[in-house]
Amino acid sequence: MDEVRALVFDVFGTVVDWRSGVAREMTRLLGDRVDAERFADDWRGRYSPSMDEVRTGRRPYATLDVLHRESVDEVLAEHGADDVPAAVRDELVLAWHRLDAWPDVVPGMRRLSPRFVLAPLSNGGIALQVALARRSGLPWDAVLGAEVVGHYKPDAEVYDSAPRLLGLEPGQVLMVAAHVSDLAAARDRGLRTAYVHRPAEFGGRRTPPASDPDADFSVVSFGELADRLGAP
Amino acid sequence: MDEVRALVFDVFGTVVDWRSGVAREMTRLLGDRVDAERFADDWRGRYSPSMDEVRTGRRPYATLDVLHRESVDEVLAEHGADDVPAAVRDELVLAWHRLDAWPDVVPGMRRLSPRFVLAPLSNGGIALQVALARRSGLPWDAVLGAEVVGHYKPDAEVYDSAPRLLGLEPGQVLMVAAHVSDLAAARDRGLRTAYVHRPAEFGGRRTPPASDPDADFSVVSFGELADRLGAP
Repeated sequence: MDEVRALVFDVFGTVVDWRSGVAREMTRLLGDRVDAERFADDWRGRYSPSMDEVRTGRRPYATLDVLHRESVDEVLAEHGADDVPAAVRDELVLAWHRLDAWPDVVPGMRRLSPRFVLAPLSNGGIALQVALARRSGLPWDAVLGAEVVGHYKPDAEVYDSAPRLLGLEPGQVLMVAAHVSDLAAARDRGLRTAYVHRPAEFGGRRTPPASDPDADFSVVSFGELADRLGAP
Repeated sequence: MDEVRALVFDVFGTVVDWRSGVAREMTRLLGDRVDAERFADDWRGRYSPSMDEVRTGRRPYATLDVLHRESVDEVLAEHGADDVPAAVRDELVLAWHRLDAWPDVVPGMRRLSPRFVLAPLSNGGIALQVALARRSGLPWDAVLGAEVVGHYKPDAEVYDSAPRLLGLEPGQVLMVAAHVSDLAAARDRGLRTAYVHRPAEFGGRRTPPASDPDADFSVVSFGELADRLGAP
């Protein structure tokens, strides 16, 4: 790990707790009209299919905000909330800009920041990442990811962009994620990988593995990540 | 100015003192073989012509590091230093990653950061901006600019990208620069503009105007910029 110079991070689930944050915003904006946690799960369930439209070339790149604005209509209909006004729907999309970091994230990143370049490598757009970073105080050095290259993970273009845009070799970049498929795709492009176990991501409805045997290492927190990388 | 939400900055000359920084690195790497300040001026003189090759479509986008690597060969030849090894030439290019911020920049940006999104909108690439920010402690929220869009200022694509990628209207973005031509191009795309007077940029060889009558306002420091924008 001596040669690692930059850490790039998945964000939804790895850095921020999307489920409780989205549910909180649904309750704030829709009251008890919907089951907020089920709504969050159903909305997140449309995440991958909506990006597949872009990945397969069936439509040009559009930001995750645009995809969320489309999929929220479907989820509202399913939840019997067809009459929610368009302005409220626009506001619902901003729930994804108002998610909180897991409690270990900022203390761990503050230790990592003096030694490593830190950047999100997320499917969320730049405005979204800026909003999340300002909300939680995430010390990013740059915002990388889908919008910078017009591709969604797990397209190779996203992983390849991190070393290229940071002026590094792939082996000098460590991808940090709570999802083994994201790490597998990063490894395919020559990046190092670290798995973070986030058992609460899906609110107990799905149990992520305790570790990823294919990753360079697996940790349970950003504090342990800093330990493993020798950050004081 | 009430509606301004983000400030985007020219970097070379506006945020960092390129001339004394490049001269310092030339002296460090080449000793007294060259007149370091004249070398810096001559290298900077090739800045605009080298980018014009990209702007006019005569060559595809290449980072400023690549353009600097090419132009340093010409400047070395002119300065009678043809025998400098390639590895040293590569290192010379990194002089542009090792420039210091003007003394007023970080204190001013620390006042501006809680209230405004801050991002470079420079012709320097992402790796270069990350290096400058980490060296001086610039609190950027994201790195925007030429490399994100594959165009060089003053191409409209660069100015247009700032509001688009930050999810704002052009009138919500204020471009800050020490060069009236940069501000004029930003205004053409609907951005607000603030001129910063940097009399030492060219080491007295060229005198920038004291103010820009076409800008929304003109200041002499980032502290005055924070004052004018009501940042506590």
